[in-house]
Amino acid sequence: MTEKCIKALKMRGVSVDDIIDIVLMLQSPYIDDLSREEIEEDIFEILAKREVYHTVMTGIAIDIAVEENKLFDQEIMDSMRGDYGLFGVDEVLAYGICNLYGSIALTNFGYVDKMKPGIIGVVNDDLTRVNTFLDDIIGAIAASAASKLAHTHKKEIKKVVMMKKRGTK
Amino acid sequence: MTEKCIKALKMRGVSVDDIIDIVLMLQSPYIDDLSREEIEEDIFEILAKREVYHTVMTGIAIDIAVEENKLFDQEIMDSMRGDYGLFGVDEVLAYGICNLYGSIALTNFGYVDKMKPGIIGVVNDDLTRVNTFLDDIIGAIAASAASKLAHTHKKEIKKVVMMKKRGTK
Amino acid sequence: MTEKCIKALKMRGVSVDDIIDIVLMLQSPYIDDLSREEIEEDIFEILAKREVYHTVMTGIAIDIAVEENKLFDQEIMDSMRGDYGLFGVDEVLAYGICNLYGSIALTNFGYVDKMKPGIIGVVNDDLTRVNTFLDDIIGAIAASAASKLAHTHKKEIKKVVMMKKRGTK
Amino acid sequence: MTEKCIKALKMRGVSVDDIIDIVLMLQSPYIDDLSREEIEEDIFEILAKREVYHTVMTGIAIDIAVEENKLFDQEIMDSMRGDYGLFGVDEVLAYGICNLYGSIALTNFGYVDKMKPGIIGVVNDDLTRVNTFLDDIIGAIAASAASKLAHTHKKEIKKVVMMKKRGTK
Repeated sequence: MTEKCIKALKMRGVSVDDIIDIVLMLQSPYIDDLSREEIEEDIFEILAKREVYHTVMTGIAIDIAVEENKLFDQEIMDSMRGDYGLFGVDEVLAYGICNLYGSIALTNFGYVDKMKPGIIGVVNDDLTRVNTFLDDIIGAIAASAASKLAHTHKKEIKKVVMMKKRGTK
Repeated sequence: MTEKCIKALKMRGVSVDDIIDIVLMLQSPYIDDLSREEIEEDIFEILAKREVYHTVMTGIAIDIAVEENKLFDQEIMDSMRGDYGLFGVDEVLAYGICNLYGSIALTNFGYVDKMKPGIIGVVNDDLTRVNTFLDDIIGAIAASAASKLAHTHKKEIKKVVMMKKRGTK
Repeated sequence: MTEKCIKALKMRGVSVDDIIDIVLMLQSPYIDDLSREEIEEDIFEILAKREVYHTVMTGIAIDIAVEENKLFDQEIMDSMRGDYGLFGVDEVLAYGICNLYGSIALTNFGYVDKMKPGIIGVVNDDLTRVNTFLDDIIGAIAASAASKLAHTHKKEIKKVVMMKKRGTK
Repeated sequence: MTEKCIKALKMRGVSVDDIIDIVLMLQSPYIDDLSREEIEEDIFEILAKREVYHTVMTGIAIDIAVEENKLFDQEIMDSMRGDYGLFGVDEVLAYGICNLYGSIALTNFGYVDKMKPGIIGVVNDDLTRVNTFLDDIIGAIAASAASKLAHTHKKEIKKVVMMKKRGTK
């Protein structure tokens, strides 16, 4: 399932490297010497989960169907195309992924959804394609990887946060 | 938006009356003299919410697209068609509705998803159509209406639950 | 963490065996020869997750604090004591556990929350103690184990569901 | 319930004005002439919901109980005191509020949870008190108000987002 997800993302212009960039941005302030290899492994594991695979493929399938004008209702396709943050179903799908990785995944998703770093911004601004679900899916995968890393590197994170607190006093 | 939802549901074989039946089944043990009119009003209000409307229309749009073999990937369409409870994205969309109506909506959804009462069972067993998202959408609307009613009839529910507790002693 | 959870549950009158009973009730219709050992292993794994451990301990801690009248506000303690399904925070904590195990966990939780099988009913009816959070925590652990099993025994479940469908025609 | 929530928040050092500041920060980029009065009204409505009231009071009750060392287990109190973002139950309670206000509430919560603007940062950095749940509760109320505003001012938001998109090209 991992391979299929990666292929579908690639087809929509998103590489695993693009997602690693976002995860690095999210977690490098907390974890020293974070390697791209470790993040990649986490992303592969996430994409191997059945529910994640189904969500990624469904989201991309809707984007493409809207692009090709294939859904039964014009109005709902217009709502998807002109996604100004009020459509909502795209975020609901993304939460379906994040929920599997706990509360850190959800807060990180909220953050990247606002900031639109890296490929998320690129995909979001690309007016030649419908990427309504794609940008949230990328955000959800990156946020889930960030959450996995936070739990793995628990001790390091504590240290950094405590030093920061001390520093600001 | 309410009207459009109702029309789309009707087109897929589901009437508001069918949904009222499920809500009655869920709440009549707790609330005396529950009228169909009150439930109908609650259902209309639910369908008038923008996020609910988007979810209902998106879910039905996917069902139809799969029926007409229009999504880009055959495998994901097969997973949707043969939904044995492991697909998961349909429930995620349904939670998106239920979450707006609090924890009672979510537990009631879980219950009807298992028991498949009334029209949910009919839709679920209908092998001539793809209703993967539809049955969960109906369940979510019914569960949300049940939650609204529980909050409106708070005092009555307390009384019934307390009598029940006493009865079992 | 697993051990600590089990000890805390035991102290509140709940054994792992009690939880296994509920999981069996939930999954034995779908999976042949389901062994108590396999379920136990899944429960242990669930309790080993940091977020699950925190939720179990927090929920039990609130129950005990209310029992001992130790929270700062009388009214909120009264709302917790007289939990008629409208308090809601107990279910929110439970969803925090279920979400980690996907949509099957959530629907199973809704079902047991309504049916209150086995130890859940016992704990719920015990008026000598405050078990407002405990019954939902048990339900969440059982529902999560059921979800894990469903994913592990994917093929078997498909077969049973298909035979059932055929049987009802 | 609104009044009681406000009193409890005040007691913990948080005023409605502090929360309005955060909402302004979140929504003023999208909505012109946003008045403090309108935001205040939305906050009052949010606090009037039964589930929100229960969550706010429960969260504050736990913070105080930990401060006074009143929970049954030392280890779980230590985990709450030293909340480095890995405790997780505080965010779960916060999502219980945000979920009622849809996906915009959830993403805004994730954002403020990361950025800790205004009173959230103050409360979070105050080492003389236990505010593990408080900062997430404030964030959830602010994020929910932001979501309500976004839906009310739908048309304005569209316009701003479109102008921004054009601007960045």
